Amino acid sequence: MDPIAPAIILDRPQLAENIGAVARAMANFGLSDLRLVAPRDGWPQERAWASASGADWPLNAARVYDTVAEAIADLTLVQATTARPRELQLPVLTPREAVEEAHAEAVQDRRTGLLFGAERAGLETADIALCQTVVTLPVDPRFRSLNLAQAVIILAYEWRMRIDAAAPANFRPGPEPAEASSVMGLYGHLEDELEAAGFFHPPEKKASMVQNLRSALGRARFSEQEVRTFRGVVTALSRGRGRVLEKIARQKAQSSGKETA
Amino acid sequence: MDPIAPAIILDRPQLAENIGAVARAMANFGLSDLRLVAPRDGWPQERAWASASGADWPLNAARVYDTVAEAIADLTLVQATTARPRELQLPVLTPREAVEEAHAEAVQDRRTGLLFGAERAGLETADIALCQTVVTLPVDPRFRSLNLAQAVIILAYEWRMRIDAAAPANFRPGPEPAEASSVMGLYGHLEDELEAAGFFHPPEKKASMVQNLRSALGRARFSEQEVRTFRGVVTALSRGRGRVLEKIARQKAQSSGKETA
Repeated sequence: MDPIAPAIILDRPQLAENIGAVARAMANFGLSDLRLVAPRDGWPQERAWASASGADWPLNAARVYDTVAEAIADLTLVQATTARPRELQLPVLTPREAVEEAHAEAVQDRRTGLLFGAERAGLETADIALCQTVVTLPVDPRFRSLNLAQAVIILAYEWRMRIDAAAPANFRPGPEPAEASSVMGLYGHLEDELEAAGFFHPPEKKASMVQNLRSALGRARFSEQEVRTFRGVVTALSRGRGRVLEKIARQKAQSSGKETA
Repeated sequence: MDPIAPAIILDRPQLAENIGAVARAMANFGLSDLRLVAPRDGWPQERAWASASGADWPLNAARVYDTVAEAIADLTLVQATTARPRELQLPVLTPREAVEEAHAEAVQDRRTGLLFGAERAGLETADIALCQTVVTLPVDPRFRSLNLAQAVIILAYEWRMRIDAAAPANFRPGPEPAEASSVMGLYGHLEDELEAAGFFHPPEKKASMVQNLRSALGRARFSEQEVRTFRGVVTALSRGRGRVLEKIARQKAQSSGKETA
């Protein structure tokens, strides 16, 4: 069982499209408890569903309240999302720190919430004072204007990163690198063939040329399968060269045969 | 000097509004290098500027290319953002891991890029194969449909968290908690006054009542200023009570005086 995800509380949201985009952002990262305080245009609003791209369930279950105090009544921790913490003596946290704090509550089966202000006006100081901490997103001071759903998705994403510490099944590191003995086998094969082909010229430079080849290939960290593949490549190239040489020798023999005929 | 932020490369973006929203998300977290590969409706598109909410500079400087290969030509690390890494043997990273990798390149003055696919179609395998790693956002498998600008802002946010490890100036912890001696002074003051007021009743419960008061107040972690404030509160309440008692005593004295007069 995952701990209870934070409720998303929108204080006096203006545009129904933004409420829909918030629902979509919540659904992306597994949040579902949406609370609306005095939405400007009333509720429900069809345009919210239209902009949720199918993330209907947070909208269907959304609860509407007259005041922030009523919307947060059952929560033990409420975090105010604002860039302007004002004069209040509240801790100001990054989204990651805030989620850490909310998670510590949630694992004790307590409900938490994230409070977001209206699109332009933001949160009123009286409502921030009902919260225990302030969350501020680390936006570039040159461009602070953050879309409501964008602010929500960053916190929802942090929540999911926190509860989903084990990467999903499709997350994977690169292929398992081969053991050094396999890689050395490939190097030896390659270098033998290069030697036979007269690649190491002049001979006194061979050692440094080998080193350079090995360090360049080594960075690729071949898997066992890839080692086998590249041994095939070396074989194919060197046999091909052998065939070319044989052909040339045959042609030479034929033409010299003709000449001597 | 901050390391060079990743370029954002949009492969065949469809809606100009989404390109504008991407520019806004970039500007929020200090990114500015926007590259467009074959935008469906051509470029420039007025609607992109309209939806950027003033984040014009990534749009003004956006470069347009015919192919992904051309768009990434000057980059040493390109990370493909996709939920479907396909059969390619590439490492699949979380946004946080991907940003860590990009940052390690950037601090060596190398340019990196994040490649995003078209709104519905996503990235083609041939283009993912030009990348060194895959980034997958840890979305809830029940609702994977992630808006383009939402995907961009999460990576931009992670980038900023990485380079901006020192919290901005307005980030702050809660008020500095007072020293225990100050807090004990407050407790003593309060308990003395409560004792005088006959609060600890029955007397054998005093110890546990005191403990409960102290542990409840202790969780607030008062600052020195707040300790002074609450001592003022105790003083005000107890003197007020004193005045009430004096008044009652005076009234009693007067009435008994009347009676005896």
